[in-house]
Amino acid sequence: MKKYLLLFLSLTFSLGVHAQFNALRVVSPEVNGNSVTIRFRAPKAIKVELSGGFLPIREVTTERGTFAMSGPVEMTEGENGIWEYTAENVAPDFYTYTISVDGVRMLDPNNLQTVRDGQNVSNMVIVPGEKSELYLEAKEKKGTLSKVWYPSPAYGSERRMYVYTPYGYGESNKKYPVLYLQHGGGGDEDAWTSLGRACQIMDNLIARGKAVPMIIVMPNANPNQLASPDIMAPLPGATVMQQDMESDEFHSGGNYVKDLVENIIPYVESRYNVIKNKNSRALAGLSMGGIYTLYTTARYPNLFGYIGVLSMGFTPGRDVKAELTPVKNAGYKLYWVGCGETDMAYANTERLLKGLDDMGMEYINFNKVGGHNWDTWRVCLKEMAPLLFK
Amino acid sequence: MKKYLLLFLSLTFSLGVHAQFNALRVVSPEVNGNSVTIRFRAPKAIKVELSGGFLPIREVTTERGTFAMSGPVEMTEGENGIWEYTAENVAPDFYTYTISVDGVRMLDPNNLQTVRDGQNVSNMVIVPGEKSELYLEAKEKKGTLSKVWYPSPAYGSERRMYVYTPYGYGESNKKYPVLYLQHGGGGDEDAWTSLGRACQIMDNLIARGKAVPMIIVMPNANPNQLASPDIMAPLPGATVMQQDMESDEFHSGGNYVKDLVENIIPYVESRYNVIKNKNSRALAGLSMGGIYTLYTTARYPNLFGYIGVLSMGFTPGRDVKAELTPVKNAGYKLYWVGCGETDMAYANTERLLKGLDDMGMEYINFNKVGGHNWDTWRVCLKEMAPLLFK
Repeated sequence: MKKYLLLFLSLTFSLGVHAQFNALRVVSPEVNGNSVTIRFRAPKAIKVELSGGFLPIREVTTERGTFAMSGPVEMTEGENGIWEYTAENVAPDFYTYTISVDGVRMLDPNNLQTVRDGQNVSNMVIVPGEKSELYLEAKEKKGTLSKVWYPSPAYGSERRMYVYTPYGYGESNKKYPVLYLQHGGGGDEDAWTSLGRACQIMDNLIARGKAVPMIIVMPNANPNQLASPDIMAPLPGATVMQQDMESDEFHSGGNYVKDLVENIIPYVESRYNVIKNKNSRALAGLSMGGIYTLYTTARYPNLFGYIGVLSMGFTPGRDVKAELTPVKNAGYKLYWVGCGETDMAYANTERLLKGLDDMGMEYINFNKVGGHNWDTWRVCLKEMAPLLFK
Repeated sequence: MKKYLLLFLSLTFSLGVHAQFNALRVVSPEVNGNSVTIRFRAPKAIKVELSGGFLPIREVTTERGTFAMSGPVEMTEGENGIWEYTAENVAPDFYTYTISVDGVRMLDPNNLQTVRDGQNVSNMVIVPGEKSELYLEAKEKKGTLSKVWYPSPAYGSERRMYVYTPYGYGESNKKYPVLYLQHGGGGDEDAWTSLGRACQIMDNLIARGKAVPMIIVMPNANPNQLASPDIMAPLPGATVMQQDMESDEFHSGGNYVKDLVENIIPYVESRYNVIKNKNSRALAGLSMGGIYTLYTTARYPNLFGYIGVLSMGFTPGRDVKAELTPVKNAGYKLYWVGCGETDMAYANTERLLKGLDDMGMEYINFNKVGGHNWDTWRVCLKEMAPLLFK
């Protein structure tokens, strides 16, 4: 009866192929302690390069100045046309990488784990260690991620958001607080769960008792998208960012803030087991999402008890006092401000911090080594989430 | 204040780059009526080939016989190193494709829409028309897809399944019937929503009133996976398919059927608004999932009122009468059998149909032109889903 087993295996697509070409199976990435090896089969290629955050840092001078860059490096061709590169002494962290074959950027076909940053997809690899332990899948008590289409009269269409519900949600009638977590310019509803590792960070924090179990709602704030571009092309005609950063139109958040306040929050509060009061709602966001946090909380000061501004602050033209006064008057449980020390939003962040000081408003400031990027925002989520709803 | 606008745009990663290199922006795929154009930038490449289901069909003779194959075709290099190929008179349908650059298979970097079949990721493109209209995103009333980790004592670990809840779910206390929909060998919990387009098909069928609003639960039946390999590497040591197709161990479904009956169904029935009776439960699956459907319904004949077997049936060694008797005795609302006419499971399907005939059991048989592939299974879902829970 073995022939039926074989018949069955031949039904299973890749399985048969894997067995056949096992000798040529390429393992990539391979993480051994603090070394990361990437392998890639391209027998006809002349030059194969690797770009990635785990590569040695070197100084690159361009017309815009001198920068520290990790990679790219040239990979070395070995047997069977398999190119290889091993980076040693890699610090534990979450890294992305891509391969360039004779000038054509591509993904590592042996690594199914990818992340997307706007239009760009990269592979990911995690080097385990203290910094990255919350980025790995939790061993148990993992929450659910839902891709939810909700009606948005504010935009005149259905739109998609992501909703994270923690482990145990729905087991009883227990009600949960809600963090509304906003992406930056170029991001979308998928961003915090892809490069942001939000599910893994929250699963791990909650499982360790370091964060309160909470629901996290991740909307899409882009007027030209009903959903992230990996499932639906952007709308023709609508632009991503029409507004001047100093304009009132931009600061009002356009349709997005209306959508958040009038559509998203009522939808969540009518469909999910949530606690419906100010001190059980948090609003946070990075970069553009930080702007929306600043101005939503100023315009709706009784909606959110917890406020998180990541890699953003006030531009010079804004009246900081006027923006912060309603928040101060209404009161809040936490005003959390996080930024990278070399972040291009650092000056804006300093204006926010000075405003909070001038007004005598309590806040927590977290600055880390790093720039305006997902390394900073992942660490910010790790730092901020344990302070919410406590 | 324009400098702040520029600062902001520079924060948004790809946006700035897009504006700068707009002249070189590559549009791919481009669908115009029934033509599909793929473009790809590779200035240094010598040969760029395109593989895809929409390409002209030609006969290929190998040592195993003569087969009809669509593609691959050579793409033609034009200006700026942009290679291009246009397929004309493409029938409306859902297609996948990949590009080969000097022998290295890769994705189209300008198309963020990808689907995964086990270890292989491809791009997708839909040519609109009657056959494919249910594969496109519904315009409104779209359901939610949730990625759920549930405790599985049967496997001794948490495992992941996908749960589709239809539009309107949770708006009231309305209870829904549930279809448990199983992948094939080489697939996982992601398969039906990726290549299977299950969300789009169900959204469209339900929005048009052609199918009853239902919940769809898509488990992962692979003993070597806690979740699909794009988020978590398979477990070392465990094999995908250990069982001989004729063995009782395989036919019992191993841990999977135990997991389905003892863990998954109770989890779903305790967490979701579902109708908890036989005639509000359906079990269906393709290929390996079809085997699990056959033997789960035989062993638990009072659990499912609706049974769907896709591209599968009985192998010659099985006692068909013994397998079907409990199902017949317990009764059922629908026994649906679907297969492709050139499907390698066709002989097994015929044995199932003959058994149903011999036993005088009512069934619906749907055969379509095509093989053991997702074209067949998408069409099967379109045909079968409207008959469930009616």
